[in-house]
Amino acid sequence: MPDRAAARPPRDGAWETLASAMADLRALQGAVCLLQWDQETYMPPRGAEARGEQLAAIQAALHERLTSPRVAEALDRAEQDASDPDRAAMIRALRFDHERAARVPPDLVRALAQAQAEGVDAWKDARAQNAFQVFAPRLERLVALRREQADALMPVLERSSRRQVSPAVRAQGQADEPAPERARGTGGAGFIAPPARSPPGQANEPGPERATGGPGGAAPPSKIEAYDALLDGYEPGMRVARLAPLLEHLVGWLVPVVEKLERAPRPDASFLEGTFPAEAQWRFTLELLAILGFDPGAGRQDRSVHPFSLGLDPSDVRLTTRIFEDQPLSAIFSTLHEGGHGLYEQGLAAADRRSVLGAAPSMGLHESQSRLWENLVGRSLPFWRACLPRLARELPRLAGVPVDSFHRAANRVERSRVRVDADEVTYNLHIALRFELELALLRGELRVRELPDAWSARSEALLGLRPETDADGVLQDIHWAQGDLGYFPTYTLGNLYAATLYAAAEREIAGLGEAIAQGDLAPLRRWLTEKVYRVGRRKDAEEIVRDATGEGLTDRDFERYLKTKYGALYGVAL
Amino acid sequence: MPDRAAARPPRDGAWETLASAMADLRALQGAVCLLQWDQETYMPPRGAEARGEQLAAIQAALHERLTSPRVAEALDRAEQDASDPDRAAMIRALRFDHERAARVPPDLVRALAQAQAEGVDAWKDARAQNAFQVFAPRLERLVALRREQADALMPVLERSSRRQVSPAVRAQGQADEPAPERARGTGGAGFIAPPARSPPGQANEPGPERATGGPGGAAPPSKIEAYDALLDGYEPGMRVARLAPLLEHLVGWLVPVVEKLERAPRPDASFLEGTFPAEAQWRFTLELLAILGFDPGAGRQDRSVHPFSLGLDPSDVRLTTRIFEDQPLSAIFSTLHEGGHGLYEQGLAAADRRSVLGAAPSMGLHESQSRLWENLVGRSLPFWRACLPRLARELPRLAGVPVDSFHRAANRVERSRVRVDADEVTYNLHIALRFELELALLRGELRVRELPDAWSARSEALLGLRPETDADGVLQDIHWAQGDLGYFPTYTLGNLYAATLYAAAEREIAGLGEAIAQGDLAPLRRWLTEKVYRVGRRKDAEEIVRDATGEGLTDRDFERYLKTKYGALYGVAL
Repeated sequence: MPDRAAARPPRDGAWETLASAMADLRALQGAVCLLQWDQETYMPPRGAEARGEQLAAIQAALHERLTSPRVAEALDRAEQDASDPDRAAMIRALRFDHERAARVPPDLVRALAQAQAEGVDAWKDARAQNAFQVFAPRLERLVALRREQADALMPVLERSSRRQVSPAVRAQGQADEPAPERARGTGGAGFIAPPARSPPGQANEPGPERATGGPGGAAPPSKIEAYDALLDGYEPGMRVARLAPLLEHLVGWLVPVVEKLERAPRPDASFLEGTFPAEAQWRFTLELLAILGFDPGAGRQDRSVHPFSLGLDPSDVRLTTRIFEDQPLSAIFSTLHEGGHGLYEQGLAAADRRSVLGAAPSMGLHESQSRLWENLVGRSLPFWRACLPRLARELPRLAGVPVDSFHRAANRVERSRVRVDADEVTYNLHIALRFELELALLRGELRVRELPDAWSARSEALLGLRPETDADGVLQDIHWAQGDLGYFPTYTLGNLYAATLYAAAEREIAGLGEAIAQGDLAPLRRWLTEKVYRVGRRKDAEEIVRDATGEGLTDRDFERYLKTKYGALYGVAL
Repeated sequence: MPDRAAARPPRDGAWETLASAMADLRALQGAVCLLQWDQETYMPPRGAEARGEQLAAIQAALHERLTSPRVAEALDRAEQDASDPDRAAMIRALRFDHERAARVPPDLVRALAQAQAEGVDAWKDARAQNAFQVFAPRLERLVALRREQADALMPVLERSSRRQVSPAVRAQGQADEPAPERARGTGGAGFIAPPARSPPGQANEPGPERATGGPGGAAPPSKIEAYDALLDGYEPGMRVARLAPLLEHLVGWLVPVVEKLERAPRPDASFLEGTFPAEAQWRFTLELLAILGFDPGAGRQDRSVHPFSLGLDPSDVRLTTRIFEDQPLSAIFSTLHEGGHGLYEQGLAAADRRSVLGAAPSMGLHESQSRLWENLVGRSLPFWRACLPRLARELPRLAGVPVDSFHRAANRVERSRVRVDADEVTYNLHIALRFELELALLRGELRVRELPDAWSARSEALLGLRPETDADGVLQDIHWAQGDLGYFPTYTLGNLYAATLYAAAEREIAGLGEAIAQGDLAPLRRWLTEKVYRVGRRKDAEEIVRDATGEGLTDRDFERYLKTKYGALYGVAL
């Protein structure tokens, strides 16, 4: 290598160009995050139009920096000899971001931004009128443009049959329910869902063949398709050929579990009825963040209509929650969920803050941390042994409630039509439904106008419920209106990674349950920080999980977790 | 003209380039404002370093857009035929901003930013140690760099002996006391102060010759100097040759007025002693903003250590205030002051929001509106006839106070060492002091190490008080530490313009006093909106005031206002 290096211009120049570009990109991304955060928290109502322009201007500057010929040229030079592993990882990640940004023609970027804005407007109108046809033409346009974008991105996927190290450059934020006003990146947003080629099943008998309409088997394992190119923007390296069989298997054992739990008696939750003062709930959510170990010197919580989290920087992480006085569990689990995202962001290595490595490698892995802290920790018995007395100090009406009863009430399982109301058992069925349909749309196997019927049929098959209206069916989520085709599966990937990581933490951390029952979450947080958060984009999501646990992407730990926990809670053999 | 136009390339291309550049500049400026606002309101403590990087990255993008060769070329082409008056004004304003940004070499821009950051750090240390010498080397460096910047900007001033239309591109914000963390623009910041050539006067006898050490007379009226180039960044078109004699005249009649008022009995303010709950004060400040007509749909008020206002856009204006439970007047006048800035920002024409015209033409004119609403309106008897009953509802301890007594207490005059504690009578003496000294520094007539002694001597001459320590003397303001040489005089220009505008409003608006006494401020706000706010940068500050009032820059209205008001309040012939 040294001889070759001597023949080239000095690499230091290339490296300095890349380092300076990365620092600029991170700083501009941080600014985008702040503008988005403010938009959902403090911005006065009439500020929306100007905010859109401010975001567009910064994103244009970001795009310009990322796609500049100087960066391309420096990448070419630096790639020739990146023996330092960190530099190699940076170059790989920056190359990925650069290629995804540079491959999409500017006209298409603009058309997508326009179609997304119009999509959200039409979606709002359609919901208000409860009429899918109001939204359908806009969705058709979005599907067509996203397919066009996917075509442009194909060469990136073919090049990177090697491992990828991260989602396209965009704000580091995690919105549980992206708000309508939320700024949309111009980068890739793509989803992977199994084919809906075979007619959706109607019967209620369990079994993978019925439940998913046969996804996965239809996708040739090694052929890259349009959906892959979109998915790659959220979950780098993930492919339909991998995801579809996994979801098929998951649905296969999940549907009968839900059916058995549905027949068992409901846990009592009457003590959660009534009114619980907002201020007391708010104080408790701040206490929860302190228990989690969220650093208030490097972040804050505010209120918003839709809870979300945004990492401007490891030293400045913004969370939001919302409070309903008649649903005391809502703010609690919303805070734990966003708090999990927040721990990830605060746990990124400070030394990576000016580098492309200082970010999570995928949306799914990020989501694994919200799910882990919300569900695996936050809906566990030891956690409430530590926290229920503190909650009862803020909400004295809960003072007499036994911890077992509270734990059962926090883990009620119930089929619902609406994804955001779903418990952790039924949740992934909502995702499977969306994955199937959006994959079929992108493959041209399903037309937009057929979507409501297909939704109804598949909802019945997976969840045993048909929507009563478009608003609680195909119009319930904002994702497609924003052009976010390919995003939904990352929610399920998050659930699966969370279970695998937590199972390993239980094996590796002696006395974890006892520590949690004492309110001591530091051992778990330290383990996750070391194994996951600090790694940043040095590895892809699955590699991080495998190195931490010995297991790659699998539904085995999730299956064991759900069956053990809910079997015991409901007294049912699962 | 048509024949010439036909021979040139189509101007539409040039115009589109300029329109798109202006829209980008405005959007990026709005983003800068939000980052600054958040920095002083909600940013977690450890976020400061990343915030600095975010601001620098956006400001670099702003600078790049503004100085791009495409913009320069489009300006050249568009200037050849700008028959539409609005387009002509836009081209003039954009040319001004472009020239000021493009003339300063990038290395100097970086050196200034660095020196400003180090200046603020050293200033903080020096204050903590009460030792000017800790700060002196940094200030020397800042003065040298600012002089170098002024040299680079000279050609712009020479070119624009014609009228100028606005301060250099920077955030639209107005900070009363720029906070240490406040982002610093890389544009010009310059001050005009009379020469300290003749030894500072010691005696106490009134008269212009003594009081100012003879400013103005020394500056050849038509010669441009370094200070002018800095001043031009805050108050376009203003020159030392114009400002120095004006301040000399002002000081000449002001010093004897202060002396007479100092000898009169103090108004009673004992009813303002004690504790006034913060929440009640806060509610009243919001009520005040409503009375002013500040639109809460297009802005908001928050709390910060140093009150300030920032206009992201006419539809999104951020104000802050601060509350002291033992000083109930503090929040009231801080809110009225920032509210005045806010009315200006909200009153800019919505149609100008993507244009360089949608901004105030100078810092002085902006300040005129904070002073007008805070002092001319907010410290008047009619205003408190309307508002004291409302205040007493929030602060019941004030329920029995007669409005005359409250009015007198709100207009106490007292010499103080610290500018921010000064009343409206003594305030401009603090400005004259700073103007003299910073002008002498830039002219090389005063060395930085001589500054504390010169401050002491001139403070004694102007205010009859010497500082007891550096901290309440030469180290009291952050401005110089930020490199803001040339800013201070805009405060006095604001006071003068405010008086002239208000005198005209009283002449033109029938029953103005009666309306105010009814709490109806709409007639005044409408008049100012039409005459001042909506004009934006179409005219320079003095032209706007002259067109509105028939008077240009003068201290005559201010003199009449102060002498009439305080003569009556104190029962003294002034």
